[in-house]
Amino acid sequence: MCELLGMSANSPADISFSFSGLVQRSGNTGPHKDGWGITFYEGKGQRTFKDCKACCRSYVTELVKTHPIKSKIVISHIRQANRGGISLENTHPFVRTLYGYYWTFAHNGQLSDYESLETGYFVPVGQTDSEHAFCWLMNQVSQHFPECPGPKELCLFVAQCCDELRKLGVYNMLLTNGDYMMTYCSNNLHWITRRAPFGQASLVDEDLSIDFNKVNDPDDVISVIATKPLTDEPGWTKMAPGEFHLFKDGECILTNAKIASGCMEKVE
Amino acid sequence: MCELLGMSANSPADISFSFSGLVQRSGNTGPHKDGWGITFYEGKGQRTFKDCKACCRSYVTELVKTHPIKSKIVISHIRQANRGGISLENTHPFVRTLYGYYWTFAHNGQLSDYESLETGYFVPVGQTDSEHAFCWLMNQVSQHFPECPGPKELCLFVAQCCDELRKLGVYNMLLTNGDYMMTYCSNNLHWITRRAPFGQASLVDEDLSIDFNKVNDPDDVISVIATKPLTDEPGWTKMAPGEFHLFKDGECILTNAKIASGCMEKVE
Repeated sequence: MCELLGMSANSPADISFSFSGLVQRSGNTGPHKDGWGITFYEGKGQRTFKDCKACCRSYVTELVKTHPIKSKIVISHIRQANRGGISLENTHPFVRTLYGYYWTFAHNGQLSDYESLETGYFVPVGQTDSEHAFCWLMNQVSQHFPECPGPKELCLFVAQCCDELRKLGVYNMLLTNGDYMMTYCSNNLHWITRRAPFGQASLVDEDLSIDFNKVNDPDDVISVIATKPLTDEPGWTKMAPGEFHLFKDGECILTNAKIASGCMEKVE
Repeated sequence: MCELLGMSANSPADISFSFSGLVQRSGNTGPHKDGWGITFYEGKGQRTFKDCKACCRSYVTELVKTHPIKSKIVISHIRQANRGGISLENTHPFVRTLYGYYWTFAHNGQLSDYESLETGYFVPVGQTDSEHAFCWLMNQVSQHFPECPGPKELCLFVAQCCDELRKLGVYNMLLTNGDYMMTYCSNNLHWITRRAPFGQASLVDEDLSIDFNKVNDPDDVISVIATKPLTDEPGWTKMAPGEFHLFKDGECILTNAKIASGCMEKVE
């Protein structure tokens, strides 16, 4: 299995505190030592650092920790290999382009009988169930929508596709096009939104604390999504199985459950 | 305009010596300070480091210089912006997937009247003439070949596409799918192949020398392609306008001119 970390913020923010906690699970407090990656968006552009060495022992990790890149959207993943060998082409996050956006994807879980899923133009490069599922999902979206859909349509359709993938096994997912951060919970995904008044927090996996008052502006809104809570703060919420969240500018603006119940305060 | 650097080798090799020379042209000995990028292949996987700051002043540059990544295929680019602003999405190299391979592209030159070139599924993310030309090229290849073609077919077809692009302006190109390194010369591209007996070389742009005997094995074959020669060695050859080279495992195995003349010693 693997661990996921995602962030959506309303202005470019530094994820290095949360990333420091995740790194510890890659070989120190956790067994996820078969590669890691992190994608930062800057406008419509993105850059991805990845390595098939353990994150806690990679010199690229040091770069990311010591020279934080501020970003509104980040996806990170540390890997414990199951499907597909330890190699760069099997290392998350995976990136594809659609509608003139870079779409970035990371997965926690394991799928069976995924090989026959039709991927069309989006042929996988590596051998993982995760990249295959991503390519199928991108193909489904591209076939269903000739142009990039709005958030409600995207949310409903991607959630339905994720429901299909969950039938094949465990499927916790982070997906972004640089504008929206989308998450799907199969069994294990948590989230927190931080806003003023900010408090203090300590990492669960490392002796490191932060006073968010000192690093954030009063208007900042930042949501963090992770496999397991990274800090000791109150406010971490476990997502329900089958729940799809859509974040934009740091806020959770939609879930599939809200749409189904007709409760759509913030969109439309 | 911009500068290009490419490498093809028969075993994973360190490009940091040549890269050190290129870096000097990004703000020190040259004006190409509007971003830079470098893509390393490891198997079918690739990782791209990029920054829209000047290469000679970027901390990611230091990482690449001090922790060399050995690779059989590398593409690097330093940018002096003309079409498209200074931003991450406009920074080369650009990457797309096709036939289950990552295709990586960098361009030196400037094109006019490129906006109407049909890109199909390969919609550009940024605003450069370069990415637009790459997307058109990928769309042409995907439309022409249902499956990944062999080297001769690929060479002939891509060379024809490059001829079309050259009608729109200056088009010097590096393109790779991680297996082949393809180059097209519009007006300014040089190459050299190094093999035993290796000699010594000094960079043109920096006071740095190397004894290739000490860093290479006797069986190593390495070709380097660059806008302008990076070292003082004999053996740099200027490519002719309209010339397309296809390198594999460090050797130039094909050119469009050789195919046209029926001279095909090494392939088929």
